[in-house]
Amino acid sequence: MPSIDAARVMADLRHLATFGAYKTGVHRPTYSPQDVAARHWLAERMQDAGLAPVIDGIGNVIGRSPVEGPRLLVGSHSESQNHAGWLDGALGVIYGLEVARAIREAPDAAGLAVDVVSFADEEGHYGALIGSRSLCGLLEEEEIDRLTNRSDGTPLRAALESAGFAGRPREQLKPERCRGFLEAHIEQGDALESTNLKLGIVTSIVAIWQYRIHFEGEQNHAGTTRMATRKDAGHALVRLAAAIDRRFPEVAGERTVWTTGRITLDPGAPSIIPGRAEMLFQFRDADPDRLVLLERTLEQLVEAANEAGPCRCRLEVMSRSVPKVMDPRFQDALEAAAERHAPGAHTRMPSGAGHDAQILAQRVPAAMLFVPSIAGISHHWREDTKEEDIVLGCQVMATAAATILRS
Amino acid sequence: MPSIDAARVMADLRHLATFGAYKTGVHRPTYSPQDVAARHWLAERMQDAGLAPVIDGIGNVIGRSPVEGPRLLVGSHSESQNHAGWLDGALGVIYGLEVARAIREAPDAAGLAVDVVSFADEEGHYGALIGSRSLCGLLEEEEIDRLTNRSDGTPLRAALESAGFAGRPREQLKPERCRGFLEAHIEQGDALESTNLKLGIVTSIVAIWQYRIHFEGEQNHAGTTRMATRKDAGHALVRLAAAIDRRFPEVAGERTVWTTGRITLDPGAPSIIPGRAEMLFQFRDADPDRLVLLERTLEQLVEAANEAGPCRCRLEVMSRSVPKVMDPRFQDALEAAAERHAPGAHTRMPSGAGHDAQILAQRVPAAMLFVPSIAGISHHWREDTKEEDIVLGCQVMATAAATILRS
Repeated sequence: MPSIDAARVMADLRHLATFGAYKTGVHRPTYSPQDVAARHWLAERMQDAGLAPVIDGIGNVIGRSPVEGPRLLVGSHSESQNHAGWLDGALGVIYGLEVARAIREAPDAAGLAVDVVSFADEEGHYGALIGSRSLCGLLEEEEIDRLTNRSDGTPLRAALESAGFAGRPREQLKPERCRGFLEAHIEQGDALESTNLKLGIVTSIVAIWQYRIHFEGEQNHAGTTRMATRKDAGHALVRLAAAIDRRFPEVAGERTVWTTGRITLDPGAPSIIPGRAEMLFQFRDADPDRLVLLERTLEQLVEAANEAGPCRCRLEVMSRSVPKVMDPRFQDALEAAAERHAPGAHTRMPSGAGHDAQILAQRVPAAMLFVPSIAGISHHWREDTKEEDIVLGCQVMATAAATILRS
Repeated sequence: MPSIDAARVMADLRHLATFGAYKTGVHRPTYSPQDVAARHWLAERMQDAGLAPVIDGIGNVIGRSPVEGPRLLVGSHSESQNHAGWLDGALGVIYGLEVARAIREAPDAAGLAVDVVSFADEEGHYGALIGSRSLCGLLEEEEIDRLTNRSDGTPLRAALESAGFAGRPREQLKPERCRGFLEAHIEQGDALESTNLKLGIVTSIVAIWQYRIHFEGEQNHAGTTRMATRKDAGHALVRLAAAIDRRFPEVAGERTVWTTGRITLDPGAPSIIPGRAEMLFQFRDADPDRLVLLERTLEQLVEAANEAGPCRCRLEVMSRSVPKVMDPRFQDALEAAAERHAPGAHTRMPSGAGHDAQILAQRVPAAMLFVPSIAGISHHWREDTKEEDIVLGCQVMATAAATILRS
């Protein structure tokens, strides 16, 4: 079995964290100078590991094993959210690199091929999972033409040009030559930590159903308009949001989550009754039947709001994804490796967040491993994982990868 | 008794509405070129009416009667909210002009002096009622140094410079030579229209108590953070807002109004649990005891929210004004004039909105007359009042002014 080099893993992770270092985390948005520098450094590390690296036309860094025959792709993404954590996707990328090195160095692993990948923009600075979609042939040129940076509006084409990636071919996955994809990631929640477990084998990546809920009332003067005659769109919004929070626990599953991320009252002035209001609402679950039930419940609450009046309420569906089930044999391999290196300290669990693995799963068998997040903190510079947990997770990935390649 | 010229009133109102015309309303923010042009035109109309006009260092237009002895000041403000109605303050200014003309022309009104005023910035583009406060000696130079435009940040000093008003002296009210102040205004609500009345005699201008309510929770990932461990500041806000709307009707007076004008969730992204949230909340009432009761109720709801947890909620008082009672004798004069010209079609009522009269009331007896707003619409370009109601209101003002000056 391959044996990882703990010091090498930690040194690489710490070096990667110097690109865009911010407090104890990193600020490394996709195609920023620090992200581009990190990708070039990753390509060099792949070269050093005996892989043939390429940075392609969307910024994906791929290191291919020189070993002939079926191969496993291992990796994640290396850009970060703004002012976010040092591990997140970086952990899975360095795990990929170390798994490739450990398997190459293992005396009993000759003929096993591991390719390593760092996808571009999993974090969605420009689009949704564009790096992994590009590799899987699920990203059209016209979408690239259209996308812009969500913070400053820079067109994706201009960003690729500045990064030096424009005009390069975009690498494509060859499913017939790829056994599958393994991705490790921090859990981003506290389910592992709160149950004192070290490893999570992901069963599925939950679906996200997102809505924009519009309220239309009548803008008016907050001093001269009697309460009885008001059509306060903000008030209507508050009532619906409160009704959701009363009703959803009754229809939610054990792991259902729902969130109102944004509320806007228009015009938003202290002395004006809001004439319009809007809320962004989403829920997530791994069970397709549950998702339908939750949507039906939301529709009923909106209907009830409209019957009660006096404002009009309209539900706009923004997106509905489907849950992505992880490959059962890969899950078994991860579980066996977890049991070997940390007996009894692992569990199977769904992923509440989206990951590149949900795209790869559309083309090849895919699975994911979670390591604990300290206090469940994610997308924040304070995000962290204990060193012993980082090292353990990497060894489990290497063992599972070897098992899968041998099967 | 003075008799107003209905055609002249309507012609002046319609001409004033050409400055910054927008759809059927006006866009005439304070010190905008269109506002400055309107003020120069008003000064000319005052001159034509035999008054001595001056535009002072804050932009107030004041036309003084050449008649010696005690005088009454009549007027309002001529700038508008953004993209707002053609009447609002303009109505009261043109009423002032017409009352001065009608009294000057009345054979039995020799020796009665009416001064006319158009205050600057009642609408608060730069500050709170700065024109009337300036006239009443309640605006310091250092506040003028400090104020900026709420939309584009232009310093008030720069705006006065561009308008050509900088360096001019600021006119001061001489209470010993002024019997008092009369202001007419559209109601801005539908209390008159909904009860088929034509005139409202204002008893007091209600107090506004304003609050910023802060919520602090924990920002986290909307997919990976279980419902049970969340500290969702937006959720806490929605619960408090819903609690206010359940509880306030039980402690409110007949005319109490309360409004949540703005809600902000931070960071306001669809997939992030808000770590902070904020709402702007206000209530208004004319009864000081009621105001205290409402504030105590709000404090109790905030306490209950903090006891329930898991977020922290903090109440910040932004401002607390006191109700301004209108002069009883002036109210009687307005009521007698209303009964004479529209028997039974008038009522006494508080003003839910703030007006220049609340400032003048701190120096001299002051009172206000309301005319109906069609559908109660205010601060919108669709704001309007029936022509017959406009004409009636002007005549009532002229009659009441003569009565007050003779008393």
